[in-house]
Amino acid sequence: MDKKTRKPTSGEQKSTASTNDFRITTRTKEPPTRRAFLTGATSLLGTAAAHVLLAPFLGHAADVPDDPTRVPGVPATEYGRRSPFERSKRLAKPQRSRTPLQDLHGIITPSALHFERHHNGVPMIDPARHRLLVHGLVERPLLFTIDELKRFPATSRIVFVECSGNSGKEWKGPKGKTAQEIHGLTSTSEWTGVRLSTVLAEAGLTPGATWMLAEGSDAAAMTRSLPLDRVLDEALLCYAQNGDPLRPEQGYPLRLLVPGFEGNTCIKWLRRLKLVSAPVMTREETSKYTDLMPDGTARQFTFDMEAKSVITVPSGGQRLKKPGYVEIRGLAWSGRGRVEKVEVSVDGGNSWRTAGLQAPVLPKCHTRFYLDWWWDGRDAILQSRCIDETGYRQPTHQELVSIRGTNSYYHYNAIQSWKIDEEGQVSNVQV
Amino acid sequence: MDKKTRKPTSGEQKSTASTNDFRITTRTKEPPTRRAFLTGATSLLGTAAAHVLLAPFLGHAADVPDDPTRVPGVPATEYGRRSPFERSKRLAKPQRSRTPLQDLHGIITPSALHFERHHNGVPMIDPARHRLLVHGLVERPLLFTIDELKRFPATSRIVFVECSGNSGKEWKGPKGKTAQEIHGLTSTSEWTGVRLSTVLAEAGLTPGATWMLAEGSDAAAMTRSLPLDRVLDEALLCYAQNGDPLRPEQGYPLRLLVPGFEGNTCIKWLRRLKLVSAPVMTREETSKYTDLMPDGTARQFTFDMEAKSVITVPSGGQRLKKPGYVEIRGLAWSGRGRVEKVEVSVDGGNSWRTAGLQAPVLPKCHTRFYLDWWWDGRDAILQSRCIDETGYRQPTHQELVSIRGTNSYYHYNAIQSWKIDEEGQVSNVQV
Repeated sequence: MDKKTRKPTSGEQKSTASTNDFRITTRTKEPPTRRAFLTGATSLLGTAAAHVLLAPFLGHAADVPDDPTRVPGVPATEYGRRSPFERSKRLAKPQRSRTPLQDLHGIITPSALHFERHHNGVPMIDPARHRLLVHGLVERPLLFTIDELKRFPATSRIVFVECSGNSGKEWKGPKGKTAQEIHGLTSTSEWTGVRLSTVLAEAGLTPGATWMLAEGSDAAAMTRSLPLDRVLDEALLCYAQNGDPLRPEQGYPLRLLVPGFEGNTCIKWLRRLKLVSAPVMTREETSKYTDLMPDGTARQFTFDMEAKSVITVPSGGQRLKKPGYVEIRGLAWSGRGRVEKVEVSVDGGNSWRTAGLQAPVLPKCHTRFYLDWWWDGRDAILQSRCIDETGYRQPTHQELVSIRGTNSYYHYNAIQSWKIDEEGQVSNVQV
Repeated sequence: MDKKTRKPTSGEQKSTASTNDFRITTRTKEPPTRRAFLTGATSLLGTAAAHVLLAPFLGHAADVPDDPTRVPGVPATEYGRRSPFERSKRLAKPQRSRTPLQDLHGIITPSALHFERHHNGVPMIDPARHRLLVHGLVERPLLFTIDELKRFPATSRIVFVECSGNSGKEWKGPKGKTAQEIHGLTSTSEWTGVRLSTVLAEAGLTPGATWMLAEGSDAAAMTRSLPLDRVLDEALLCYAQNGDPLRPEQGYPLRLLVPGFEGNTCIKWLRRLKLVSAPVMTREETSKYTDLMPDGTARQFTFDMEAKSVITVPSGGQRLKKPGYVEIRGLAWSGRGRVEKVEVSVDGGNSWRTAGLQAPVLPKCHTRFYLDWWWDGRDAILQSRCIDETGYRQPTHQELVSIRGTNSYYHYNAIQSWKIDEEGQVSNVQV
């Protein structure tokens, strides 16, 4: 799975240095003054933000030194922050925020950039006072504290979570501009918690317990019904994400995680599991999160997130500066299991090449793919399609619409096409 | 590799609820007022810190609501933060900080909690002005910008980095108290960058180029010599960590990463690679980072971090509240490859059981292990030992000292012993 060394084209930008000094000093022609740096930063951030972000540095190095080897740096800290030069951010509206997929590397999404979707804001919860109730068709109704849940055997998994509304506007044409805007409602974390099956074994299922209602303690009291036979093997009650406790917007202090299922089933701020004999038909599985078909009927309980992929470099809103070598990079995933193969086309789907996959390739997890390409400076249409281990192949827009119509909003997983024009500008098209 | 469901002991703490209301309301006996909450927070944080941390919440929910379903939460944000209830932190001195291993879950270390080691502080570097010089025994000396390096094929790997001084005080007895204090100079991230071999292929090695000097642009201008035949296959020039750009204390905007080698060779703030025909004998490989043996000679260039492990739960400073089920959890790793097996003893090394390993088990990466244990309330000594894929077995303190003596500070990888007394208190011992 590892990548071979590849020679970039002669178009690769490089410069030559002749110095053989033991310690070089890099100097710009006009070393920026502190004022110049702060002015620059301020225009980017606004005064208050710049002050906060640069504060830990300003106390020790009031300037960005021309030669950092000549100025002692800042001491170690208890909790780190990113460089003030890095400004990647989620695209935030009140009830959702989107991950900047085009800025990410590897497969882990930084917790601070994991997408959000909530239905009445992120609640403030004191973990010491939070409880999980397990009741309904069980032998022993139980009430757990977070500390009690942490005493059970812990399991970790690196998996994606995707909102079923991701890319939903694309049903009606190429609406979004960037990978973030179109596809940013998917992210990957290492999640840790206790298996649902462990907790339910403690409560003891009684005959007829075939579904489970999960309820959040946010101001929407978000609820979904889940079929036990689909979730018992893999679902986790998570209290940690990427090594740390869950972030507030990811359900702190406890969320349900159903690997491969649509994000809204992974109930955040989880406070209740009720075992039942049939789906409860909550708002979120009747009025919302159903798929309206062309004949006016609606598909219900379409839990699985089907195979999907997106090229993140180059992607909408970016620009190739000149012809030459480009590493095409992207992410592929499937709620059904492992990514088996990713194919990439640079000619609008006439021909396809198999992309490389970065190890590890994990089930129900973002998988990084890459392909060498030499852009000749002419119009091109870039596409990727994911084939998962079940043999399912990601459909074209036409294939998807021919079956599902355009009434639906959820579960849009068609191939993304990026057009590159002769200026190198990348834009969203459907072909 | 997946874990089986296990039944906790009857000693598992639980409580029973009888309510069958559709939406429960959890009420504490005395709902805290805003004042009570802030007072509590302030005593923990100091006034200024509490203000900053709670600010995003106070604007929308001035209190921790008794029932969070009755108060709209806060809207989505561009860049997330952890809950103000979470306070895990690095143990920071000016030139180093240690990861709170006992607080972590899974294998990924949150970037904000990755250990630090620097020799003259963390420099402030503008990535647009940073350059990497490749020179010496090469056909074409080259100077790269960060953007130029990002255009090369990218590779990601999830691997640990460990300071060779980790646990160094333990040579002379059980000095540290907690897992963090003793072993906190190791962390795991997903690192992304360009392969060293790709960049060196661009420069073209000339005959005799067998070693490489790597130099940082911090105020220590940290330098190490590395044998090309050991590093060419795996070394990366990294610009990203856990999906995001490198953190400043991890070498932003560029660091060398040599998987499995001692952390100080993974030169941070990397600005120069000089190809040479022999080691340069820098301060860091003569005066420092050598291993003084009992006969007064010193081992030099002991790059490899040998197999090691530590039980993080229960670990020093923690307390088992009562007899009963405990999931023993810990981390194992080896700079030589994959963890093959972890064995755990609860009787000071008289008998050993094989622990479970959490998938994925990746080469040169922290690996999470776990074992069921029923504590009977009596004195116990817990130990773990890592066996890696080369067959190497982590030594006891006595075995290690019998060969290496106690003159050394670096490369201490003996078995950690935690004593549990009848009160459940866990402390550091050597047996």
